[in-house]
Parts: sequence; structure tokens; C-alpha cells
Amino acid sequence: MLDLSLPAGLRDLLPDHSAHLAELTARLHGVFASFGYRRVLLPTLERLEVVELGLSPAATRDVLKFVEPASGEVVAIRPDITPQIARLYAARPDALPAPARLCYDGPVLRAREARAGRPREVYMAGVELLGDAGPEADAEALEVLARALERVGLRHAVIEVGHAQFAQAVVRAAGLPPDAQEEATVALSRKDEVTLAALSRRGRGAKAACDALPSLAGLYGDGALERARRVARAAPAASAALRELEAALRKARSRGLTQVAVDLGEVRELGYYTGITFTAYAPGAGSWVASGGRYDDLLARFGRPGRAIGFGFDLEFATQALERAGVRAPPRARARSRIRK
Amino acid sequence: MLDLSLPAGLRDLLPDHSAHLAELTARLHGVFASFGYRRVLLPTLERLEVVELGLSPAATRDVLKFVEPASGEVVAIRPDITPQIARLYAARPDALPAPARLCYDGPVLRAREARAGRPREVYMAGVELLGDAGPEADAEALEVLARALERVGLRHAVIEVGHAQFAQAVVRAAGLPPDAQEEATVALSRKDEVTLAALSRRGRGAKAACDALPSLAGLYGDGALERARRVARAAPAASAALRELEAALRKARSRGLTQVAVDLGEVRELGYYTGITFTAYAPGAGSWVASGGRYDDLLARFGRPGRAIGFGFDLEFATQALERAGVRAPPRARARSRIRK
Repeated sequence: MLDLSLPAGLRDLLPDHSAHLAELTARLHGVFASFGYRRVLLPTLERLEVVELGLSPAATRDVLKFVEPASGEVVAIRPDITPQIARLYAARPDALPAPARLCYDGPVLRAREARAGRPREVYMAGVELLGDAGPEADAEALEVLARALERVGLRHAVIEVGHAQFAQAVVRAAGLPPDAQEEATVALSRKDEVTLAALSRRGRGAKAACDALPSLAGLYGDGALERARRVARAAPAASAALRELEAALRKARSRGLTQVAVDLGEVRELGYYTGITFTAYAPGAGSWVASGGRYDDLLARFGRPGRAIGFGFDLEFATQALERAGVRAPPRARARSRIRK
Repeated sequence: MLDLSLPAGLRDLLPDHSAHLAELTARLHGVFASFGYRRVLLPTLERLEVVELGLSPAATRDVLKFVEPASGEVVAIRPDITPQIARLYAARPDALPAPARLCYDGPVLRAREARAGRPREVYMAGVELLGDAGPEADAEALEVLARALERVGLRHAVIEVGHAQFAQAVVRAAGLPPDAQEEATVALSRKDEVTLAALSRRGRGAKAACDALPSLAGLYGDGALERARRVARAAPAASAALRELEAALRKARSRGLTQVAVDLGEVRELGYYTGITFTAYAPGAGSWVASGGRYDDLLARFGRPGRAIGFGFDLEFATQALERAGVRAPPRARARSRIRK
């Protein structure tokens, strides 16, 4: 009996699905190009030790890896394209002077994302602005994302902007024991205020930070910035993060962006974000349709220090949103069903 | 010291190069779609035992393969997309009724093609017409190729058409000893009439076939069909092949194709061609820019018998031809520099 199955996690995309993805990808590249982003084509496999530079040890464990019998070389299917772009940028300073605007598309394999325990192949398309910093660069990334959402027909998408260090700074200042810190991260990702309140009583750090902990679950929606300013008083690092976020938002609004909201309770699993982070949600998609942020430490790991920001579309969820355009999921259900990048 | 190298054979394509490839790919898909071909997206890795179904044992040896340590599963980087499409067609009769018109693009890794002993990653884009036979299907494939060449700007390209069984039938009828048969194949690929004449004296088969052997090197250019008809008298299987070829050419010409020539000395390394084969050469390219043929046995290997024809562009050589458009290589040098598919 013939077994025509694919290796674990990989799959074929049939004609209609492929056509939608291809059309979406072409439109996105049109927008990326209009902002000066230039396409690069990168292989789906990398040597494992290069992949590891872009991941936390926990994330590395879940990468699909293989041994080449002849050479003993260990390769991995890329779980993410951003570190690959960082590797290229570091390896080719001759061809890619700073700032470099690069864009890409292609599949990645994410072992962790499939909560059913199976890996999931995800087609991504995105941009990276490398070797550039400050609120103008942040606002540019947000603008490219906003125009891309409009261009592909996701006019009702909302971009929720947060900061990688805001919630973290408050949790740290609260001085929770290690196990409670982990629980707090999980609770934050669920916006679970009750659990955060319980954990805050175990804090041994600044009282203001402990008191502020439950409020982290509510830093989205109307008045979120107001509430964030009060929370930020509990930790200087949170204040600094908030200032960066507000500067980026001001610049983004001066570029005419209106679909931007704040979500400062956002926490991420991919280890490399250091500044603003953002996620685009569209009605009808089962999860976020695009996601990204600032990563100012990642390039240095590959040997060419520099600040950078970028984002990627999940083409599958974006396609889903387009197919179901007009269907709006209940906001709380949406928040709970998020798959964290 | 950081080693940012890629696994053997893989590489990054930098912005200008990537933009050219992407533009070329988009144009090709435009032509493919206009003939009703529908895009599929397939993973770059397959399980080795599936890849092997599409290859000769010799070709399998040169596939880049890996072992997944946890499962022991052996996977290979695809060396060719046609057998992958055959696998998909066999696995999904529900979604892909016959005849199916499918198209694709993406990288393959060819260990044998790099004569320097290093594997070469090749970006391909092509079509497959599955579950259809006869001169109309053959002519359709030739027409799609011709229109694609025109659309991308390779107006001076020539499509050389041969047949997988013509030269083979003559060599077989000549009854050469096994080592001489192999030498004859090499000599044919070099159009080396002198060696073929020497080998013909070792034939123990039909005298007419032995006498015809050296002529196989000259079955291209003006009057090639005339000469082929004389050669075909030496072997019935060669006559049958020639009739198929001539029927396809008549249909192609009735569709207005003018850039078609005959090369019946053509021999191929990829084991699955059974009928007409064709190769497009463009001035300025270091090798063929597109290549394909009929493969009526391959689908059965995957469990869904059916006749099929298809071709693929080598996007790299096509890009090269476009960049050097107007520069015409000397015909003999071109013939010698061919990289055999």
C-alpha cells in the first residue's frame, strides 16, 4: 500500500486556496514595494545553530530539525523569517547598507502554534526595516501595515499596539517569585484580572507595582492610554516604554492612521521584541492576521548590531478574514482565541 | 566566530535578483492562468520514499536527504516538482478530477546539476496537464510554453522538440553491449557523431539500426524531419515515436506556433519521459530556459494511472537570458553548454 503522506506538519495547498494566497501575496508586495521595501528570497531550511540565534531555548526545542547523514549537519525548517532576514543583513553588509528595507514571503513551520500538538505550516509575507530606530521608523512600520490591510480589502481591521517592555516592567517591579511570574505571563495573555489580583498578593517588590498588576489585564479599549499612564507610575521602565509607544502613535496619527488602538497587556512568546509591538485583527479571522514589533537586540546576535522593526502577515488567517468579510466575531471570544506569536 | 552559512546548496537571493525572479514568475502565472492552469502550493520537503517514486535509482542517490531524529522519518529536499504534482494528483482525486491543469513555482535542489560537485538550488515555474493524452494535449503544452516565452520577452527563443523513445529505440535495435549503450547515450548528449560511428561497429543487432546510429547526432536543424524519417526505418519503435512527434507538431503549427524546431538526438536523464520532449533555448542564457515532456507512466507509480505532459521554466536562466537579451551565443557552443535536465 502506497503511503503518499507528507512529512509531519507540511501540507499541499489546493488550487482555490493557492490562488487566494498568491493574489494576497502579490497585493502585499505591491504595497511593500510602494514604500521602498525590496524582496529577498530565502531558503526554507537553515542550519540549526543559526536558527537558534533567533529563538529562546524553549522555542528552539520545538523547531523541526533534521540530520544530514553524510555530513552530520543539523538543519531546521525555519520557524520564523525575521531571524533569517537578520542573518542575511549581517552576512551581506556589502549588498545591504543601513537602513535596509526588505520584504519576503514564504512558508514557516511552527511546532508550538498547533495547540493540538501537531506542527502548523504557515505562509507569511512581511517587511523588515533594518538599521533604523526612533518613532519615525516605528510609525513607518505601522503605516505600511495599515496600507497593506486596506489594499487587500481588510478595511475594518484594527491594529493593536503595545510595548514589549511595559507589562514586563510592572511584573518585574512587583517582585513575584519565579513560578508566580510565569503564571502572571499566562494570566496576562488571557487578560485574566482575577488571577493577576491573586498573584499580586505574593509580590515582594514595590507596592505600587503589586497594586497595578491586575490593571494590566485592562489596558485596551477606550481610555487605555489614560489607565496605562497611571500604571506606569509603578515602574520607571514602564514609563519609558509608554513614552516610546506614545511617540510612535503620535507619528502614526500624523501620517493619517486611524485604525490604531492600544493594548498594553500584550505579551509575546517570540523572544526578540524590545520595543513597540503590534498585532492586526480583522473581523472573521480565527486569529491575528498580521503581527510584528521592534527588535533592537536581534541583529547583534548575528554580528551586525543595529535597531530594527518589522511585521509579518499570516496569509492563511488573512485569507480567512477576507472570505468571511463582514462577519464579526464577539470581541471577548476573539481575545480568547488569539494565537500568540 | 559566528558561522552564518547556509546548508549545502541553499542560498539567499538578494533584492534585484529576487525582484527579477518574482516579476518573471508573476508573468508566467498570468499566461498559465489564461490557459486554465490553476496554481498549487507544495512544500519543499517530501518523505524520501515518495521522492524515490519519481526518480531513477541513480538520481535518488544524489537527492539531499535528512533524518528526523525523533521519528526516524527520512525526508528529502525536492529535486523536481513534477513528481510532487503527480503525488498530489494521485492523493486527491476528489479535488482534482481529470484532466487537471495545474501550475506551480518554487525552488528545487539538484545535486547532480552542479557539475562542480556542489548541489544547485533552482527556482522553477511550470505547468502540468494531467490525465490527458494525444497530439492536442501535446500541442497545448507547446503552445503554453510558446506564449509564456513571448510574454516574458523571450521572443527569440526556440523550442526544440524531440521524443523520449526515438534515439533509444535505434540504440536498442542496434544491440550494443551494455557499456557501449552507456557510451552511446553520452555521445548522443554531445552530438558526437565520430564516437557513435565507432560504437556502431560493436552493434550485434539490426544492421540498419547500427548504420543509422551516427545519424542520430545530426537530427536537428533544417531537414531534420526528413533525415529522421530515414533513420526511423531502422526501428519500428522509432517510427511510432516519430509519428507521435509529427502529429504534435502539426497540431502545434495549426495553433500558429512558428518557433518550434526538431531535435531528435535529445536524450534525458530524468527517467520519467515517455513521449515528446521539448526544451526552450534563448539567446544569452547559459543553458535551457524551459524544458518538459510527456510522462505517461509516472502517475501510475503514485497509484492513479493517467497520461500527462508538462514543462518547467528554470527562472534563473530565463532571467539571465532576459538580462542579456540580444546577445546570441554561437549555436555549437550553445549545444555543448547545455545542462541536461
